[in-house]
Amino acid sequence: MKFRRSSRLVDMTNYLLQHPRRLVSLTVFADRYDSAKSSISEDLTIIKQTFEQQGIGTLQTVSGAAGGVKYIPYVGEVEAKGFISELREQIANPDRLLPGGYLYLADILGDPQIVNQIGRLYASVYSDRKIDVVMTVATKGIPLAYAVARYLDVPVVIVRRDSKVTEGSTVSINYVSGSTKRIQTMVLAKRSLNEGSSVLIIDDFMKAGGTINGMVSMLEEFNAHVAGIGVLVEAEDIEERLIDEYISLVKLTDVNVKEKQISVSEGNYFSYLKSLGEIAQEQYDEGTVDEE
Amino acid sequence: MKFRRSSRLVDMTNYLLQHPRRLVSLTVFADRYDSAKSSISEDLTIIKQTFEQQGIGTLQTVSGAAGGVKYIPYVGEVEAKGFISELREQIANPDRLLPGGYLYLADILGDPQIVNQIGRLYASVYSDRKIDVVMTVATKGIPLAYAVARYLDVPVVIVRRDSKVTEGSTVSINYVSGSTKRIQTMVLAKRSLNEGSSVLIIDDFMKAGGTINGMVSMLEEFNAHVAGIGVLVEAEDIEERLIDEYISLVKLTDVNVKEKQISVSEGNYFSYLKSLGEIAQEQYDEGTVDEE
Repeated sequence: MKFRRSSRLVDMTNYLLQHPRRLVSLTVFADRYDSAKSSISEDLTIIKQTFEQQGIGTLQTVSGAAGGVKYIPYVGEVEAKGFISELREQIANPDRLLPGGYLYLADILGDPQIVNQIGRLYASVYSDRKIDVVMTVATKGIPLAYAVARYLDVPVVIVRRDSKVTEGSTVSINYVSGSTKRIQTMVLAKRSLNEGSSVLIIDDFMKAGGTINGMVSMLEEFNAHVAGIGVLVEAEDIEERLIDEYISLVKLTDVNVKEKQISVSEGNYFSYLKSLGEIAQEQYDEGTVDEE
Repeated sequence: MKFRRSSRLVDMTNYLLQHPRRLVSLTVFADRYDSAKSSISEDLTIIKQTFEQQGIGTLQTVSGAAGGVKYIPYVGEVEAKGFISELREQIANPDRLLPGGYLYLADILGDPQIVNQIGRLYASVYSDRKIDVVMTVATKGIPLAYAVARYLDVPVVIVRRDSKVTEGSTVSINYVSGSTKRIQTMVLAKRSLNEGSSVLIIDDFMKAGGTINGMVSMLEEFNAHVAGIGVLVEAEDIEERLIDEYISLVKLTDVNVKEKQISVSEGNYFSYLKSLGEIAQEQYDEGTVDEE
């Protein structure tokens, strides 16, 4: 069946959005719509322009016999600033205060739209790194890990506090919790991670970084290595941070239980967010994509 | 800035896909693209046709002053059959067998594309029910719950086995595990669920149904009620099932550890999947949408 341009644009947009970072040969689209490759190329130019203009992302064109087009999710600085500013406001709501100065965040982490947007933000900042898998620890980091992984088109592995019969044989490590200095255990199913994988660690909250440090030690057991560390909230008032390089969306600068005040500032996210032009230039320098 | 039709179609497609089941006034689009409402209406007709033809879903038009358009995610029977058939094949792989006849499913549940597709399937079958929130129990059901919730545009609440300081005050119940007959505990943060909510329960696996039954009891504590129960895998060889109405994608009919054979059949999903025509007719009968 032949498709008109208008229908092709709608369907291709959906197809590309559903397959982020996956190389799609122009032949796939040409066959799908029974259309000439030249028409498909024109469609892709329109989609690319609209994606970039509307802050949806960009399309990368790869030339040659194995070439095609790839949708790269990307959030621009203005949109990211707006989102993080809303997030700060939400987190600073004093109703979140729990005994002991803890914060209730289950409503934010329970909102699929917010979680999805956090995934887009992290995918944008890690878009030029080689990542094979996203890792998190049960329970609260799980939705964030999946949101990021979906935009990066990689699987998720989940570290647990206790071993379950449905995991098969596991690797177990002990680590020191950064703030309470207690010895804790985490386990990971042996078959869930391949040797030599590049792993993006994602978690909801980082204080001293003990749990994340535990995940880093776990990666060593699998001869895997850290491709990046992303946390939604970092707590500031820490004597000694166990983790050096991480990217946070927001920073908890002060929690005053008595005055019922929560101070939240921007995390270090924007020190890492490149512009679309920079990403395109890097890709071009590497010779992996065509110049437009 | 004025948009051409081709750019509008790309951006509107993305916008609608990012906001499933949300009513968008035509004015929003008219303003966004500085275009006449009549042009927007024509665009929406093209998008609706393409969505239905390509199995992406449909658009519902609501008339009147508070009217607009809504994207309803929907998977057609052919696509659902194909997906479930692939899933059956994957689950029947004897490499999954663990001691005790348990199955390793972490790779399937760790694949965001598969998880997302499961979400679409459940959203299609529950699209005509009133659902306020999706509930699951930690850990393995979490990604599935978020995938469904994103397509239904509702939040997720997570029941836990143990209470955490970051949950605030919780409601705790005891329940009897269906297969082992042991007494177990589950807890839910008090502020995570509103009274009277209609709740869709989602989990990865159901044997006798003890855990799901526990979640049903938990809902009673909140004066909330069950809007539906969806499980990815149901095990068949059960003397007494504690749950009557549920929708499963696949059914484990036999696990033979000695012969290393896993038999997997279709779940009861297709007894519940309506056609797009049936859904449209129901909506029309209720007077909530316009006839095309």
